[in-house]
Amino acid sequence: MNLLELSKWRYAAKVMNGEKVSQDKIDYILEAIQLAPTSSGMQQFEVFIIKGDELKAQILPIANNQTVVTECSHLLVFASWDNYTEERINEAFENMFEKRGGKDERWDAYRQRIVDLYTNKPEDINAEHTARQAYIAFTYAIIAAAELGLDATPMEGFDADALDKLLGLDKKGLKSVTMLPIGYRAEDDWYGTFKKVRKDKEVLFTELD
Amino acid sequence: MNLLELSKWRYAAKVMNGEKVSQDKIDYILEAIQLAPTSSGMQQFEVFIIKGDELKAQILPIANNQTVVTECSHLLVFASWDNYTEERINEAFENMFEKRGGKDERWDAYRQRIVDLYTNKPEDINAEHTARQAYIAFTYAIIAAAELGLDATPMEGFDADALDKLLGLDKKGLKSVTMLPIGYRAEDDWYGTFKKVRKDKEVLFTELD
Repeated sequence: MNLLELSKWRYAAKVMNGEKVSQDKIDYILEAIQLAPTSSGMQQFEVFIIKGDELKAQILPIANNQTVVTECSHLLVFASWDNYTEERINEAFENMFEKRGGKDERWDAYRQRIVDLYTNKPEDINAEHTARQAYIAFTYAIIAAAELGLDATPMEGFDADALDKLLGLDKKGLKSVTMLPIGYRAEDDWYGTFKKVRKDKEVLFTELD
Repeated sequence: MNLLELSKWRYAAKVMNGEKVSQDKIDYILEAIQLAPTSSGMQQFEVFIIKGDELKAQILPIANNQTVVTECSHLLVFASWDNYTEERINEAFENMFEKRGGKDERWDAYRQRIVDLYTNKPEDINAEHTARQAYIAFTYAIIAAAELGLDATPMEGFDADALDKLLGLDKKGLKSVTMLPIGYRAEDDWYGTFKKVRKDKEVLFTELD
């Protein structure tokens, strides 16, 4: 299926059937996340993968008791950097230099410009920028899941501070921004009965000349 | 090609060759944007499509003179709602009711909860939430372009306020959040010579139990 067909097939399942997803499929989704583009290639986020029933049960009340959190097979939590630091930026570029076989002078000058740019911006602006990068990877995961015939339910409705504390993300300088339960839709999911509705093209798109 | 193969093929072309993209391909990308999932299905953004040389030339200095803005075939500007309003939320739900053949009581109660939720949040928090939804659609566009063998260059480095003024987005209550030049990579694009580098899986992913 192409992206349009996948997009028509998928929806945000609100009830899943508990069936487990195989590791190779999870690996495919993680590789898609890994390949997602990000600003200056810095991959300003980490992803936490939760399979265990106990931890899912602890997350349930933090996520407004949306049961898909416990019914899913794997729960992905996307958490982005709470701020840019020189160390984080350098680490990302060092990884690039290493994998490209050495430091390139022009890229290293670019690295310094990036350090100067972000370490002079307020923390909340930086945190928002890193969150947006996480959303790109999050979207890759949604599409990757659909390619495999898996359901994935984008979730923003949870208490991020409580989740960060529970998972120890705050101590890592990370902020959870979205969750993505992955699994298989239950046949009786009420949400699966609704026609997919989008705004008309004339509302969404404007040609300017 | 599947998503992983597409992700390996694509990169952010910094030089394009000026070749025009056919309308059917642009339509495919727009349909992908239209189908992208958003929070409560509200599609909190609009997309502006710029083909004309004159307008592109005016945008060039606003975008740090990154010439891909003028070398591309179509320049997409993603602009998200500057705030939630009752009117905007109602309009989105009215569209849903109309296309699903009538108002559903439970969905209408949900609409009211959404109105109460967002109209009581600060404008900057709301603007960030709508921007994140635009990023989902933006990511769909990046992948749709790759499916068609087109290059698409994610761009955040521009003066959003100046662009909003130039395009009249501020008067529409919109804020530009990203641009996406679409076209064909130039053969001599320096950026095309670099090996794609990503962080190792052990850095990005953590299993929690």
